Amino acid sequence: MSSKIRVGIAGYGNLGRGVELALSQNADMELVAVFTRRDPTAVNLFNQQVPVYDLAQIEQHRAAIDVLILCGGSKNDLPEQGPLLAQWFTTVDSFDTHARIPEYYAAVDASAQAAKTTALIAVGWDPGLFSLNRVFGEAVLPQGETYTFWGKGLSQGHSDAVRRVPGVKGGVQYTLPIDAAVQRVRDGEQPTLSTREKHRRQCFVVLAEGADAEQVRQAIVTMPDYFADYDTEVNFIDADTLARDHAAMPHGGFVIRSGQSAAGTQQVVEYSLALGSNPEFTSSVLVAYARAAFRLQRMGQYGAKTVFDVAPGLLSARSAAELRKDYL
Amino acid sequence: MSSKIRVGIAGYGNLGRGVELALSQNADMELVAVFTRRDPTAVNLFNQQVPVYDLAQIEQHRAAIDVLILCGGSKNDLPEQGPLLAQWFTTVDSFDTHARIPEYYAAVDASAQAAKTTALIAVGWDPGLFSLNRVFGEAVLPQGETYTFWGKGLSQGHSDAVRRVPGVKGGVQYTLPIDAAVQRVRDGEQPTLSTREKHRRQCFVVLAEGADAEQVRQAIVTMPDYFADYDTEVNFIDADTLARDHAAMPHGGFVIRSGQSAAGTQQVVEYSLALGSNPEFTSSVLVAYARAAFRLQRMGQYGAKTVFDVAPGLLSARSAAELRKDYL
Repeated sequence: MSSKIRVGIAGYGNLGRGVELALSQNADMELVAVFTRRDPTAVNLFNQQVPVYDLAQIEQHRAAIDVLILCGGSKNDLPEQGPLLAQWFTTVDSFDTHARIPEYYAAVDASAQAAKTTALIAVGWDPGLFSLNRVFGEAVLPQGETYTFWGKGLSQGHSDAVRRVPGVKGGVQYTLPIDAAVQRVRDGEQPTLSTREKHRRQCFVVLAEGADAEQVRQAIVTMPDYFADYDTEVNFIDADTLARDHAAMPHGGFVIRSGQSAAGTQQVVEYSLALGSNPEFTSSVLVAYARAAFRLQRMGQYGAKTVFDVAPGLLSARSAAELRKDYL
Repeated sequence: MSSKIRVGIAGYGNLGRGVELALSQNADMELVAVFTRRDPTAVNLFNQQVPVYDLAQIEQHRAAIDVLILCGGSKNDLPEQGPLLAQWFTTVDSFDTHARIPEYYAAVDASAQAAKTTALIAVGWDPGLFSLNRVFGEAVLPQGETYTFWGKGLSQGHSDAVRRVPGVKGGVQYTLPIDAAVQRVRDGEQPTLSTREKHRRQCFVVLAEGADAEQVRQAIVTMPDYFADYDTEVNFIDADTLARDHAAMPHGGFVIRSGQSAAGTQQVVEYSLALGSNPEFTSSVLVAYARAAFRLQRMGQYGAKTVFDVAPGLLSARSAAELRKDYL
């Protein structure tokens, strides 16, 4: 019997690939199976030794897997897979539809409580590490304001919106924090900032044959919800430039808590991420929390959990004594 | 019976005063007593309604206090008070002698386990919030380096060392991170940095009557352990300037984890503090963890604990459902 934590991956897209890679950096865990809705023979892992199975048959593999990392999408996959798979496996997922978290939590919790599994939901960096810093900041400095800035980062949702505009052949969208606003917050000013004052948007667009650039630009910058409330810059580029310069998926941002201790003294706490790859970092967070999910289940902490419920020491491969000695 | 968490303070110096102030920002907690080794009638609280008692009589107050915040020093007070008081109270302290944490933990743990109390030790920002970020950083990015920079901040220990130099009438010492080194780390370079390359030291000194400035300067900059390994700047000022410009206790710093996800992509995580007052911020952290200590004890989690053992949600006055809904 292996002494490593045996991990499965459900769904092998960007996130699933990132999880496979992240697992290779953690000596106490091993990938034992990948599950897919596609034809398993058509899925090529980095490590060809690991078997790929049909997701529909996953229940048969219950005994072989300690933790299952759900790498499906929040919109269509997880609302169904989360509650379903928690009845057979201890799970971790990156559900990120903020508004639907309470109902997703309830569905997964019911399933996991009944099965005595542990299901860590909404893990990643936002929701996830950013959420933690929002809670730490407010708990330590109850009098103050919390600010979240995102970017510079590629936004998948906004890139999709750009690509749906008639006349657009391809494109990407970057969200950028506005430096002047970040600086005011860092300086402890606690400003009230409008949507437009916090972030701006930058698009790189490849036009379809015969499309009118100005018409496309207008359609983008006036698009409600996505762009109308922001200052949006639209740059037209050719398909080669798009492929060469805009294939990476950088992201990041800041959570800043600016507050006063009770004597009126200014205190500023900042957490920031500068990520070369958004999906790879999210995968790395999922893997660390998979270790915690395994331990929580062993401790009898069943049901749905979030990052707020996980003692930080559970994320580390090191023992509690080692952490106290070398990391405090 | 009060529904608030009833808090006591043991020791009323800078930290104890900060805790009294921080409690006033937290509506779910109330200060019910302060304990001192001095004459209780000589101790003046911000809130005159709160009674001050002799620390020697503290055992009598067991039933009146849910959590006791220990505000004594790490060198002489806590090694004795920590284990002693944990036999009667659930406690929180800011023990910060890094090298002695394992033995302190063992002593407090034995006492708290026997008494079924919970003792949260080494709480503050370093050890404390910085320690958490060292663990998060390594767990999420196992391949990489962690860097801690301190400052700009007033160092109590180094200020004391300066004041012990013959010919010095008064003075303070600031630790400053070296910007170029911080920038290299932020850029993901993962440099190897010597002590001298990471921090520099800045002293402001008031000379005693007839003292020789150059002799004092030499004595400071060559002092082993404290200054010899750093570039140290010594500025001579008069007593009025010292009182006017150097009475605050600012501090702060950065914990930066720079690593690569497995595909080789650069990822940088940074946590930083810019503190107007070091003791007031430490007090604020102690109060948030007092809430958690109370809850852990109620949950039956007895014994000594550190920040690594505390699920972040326990720090917040908000319910778990509210945190999931509004903070994830």
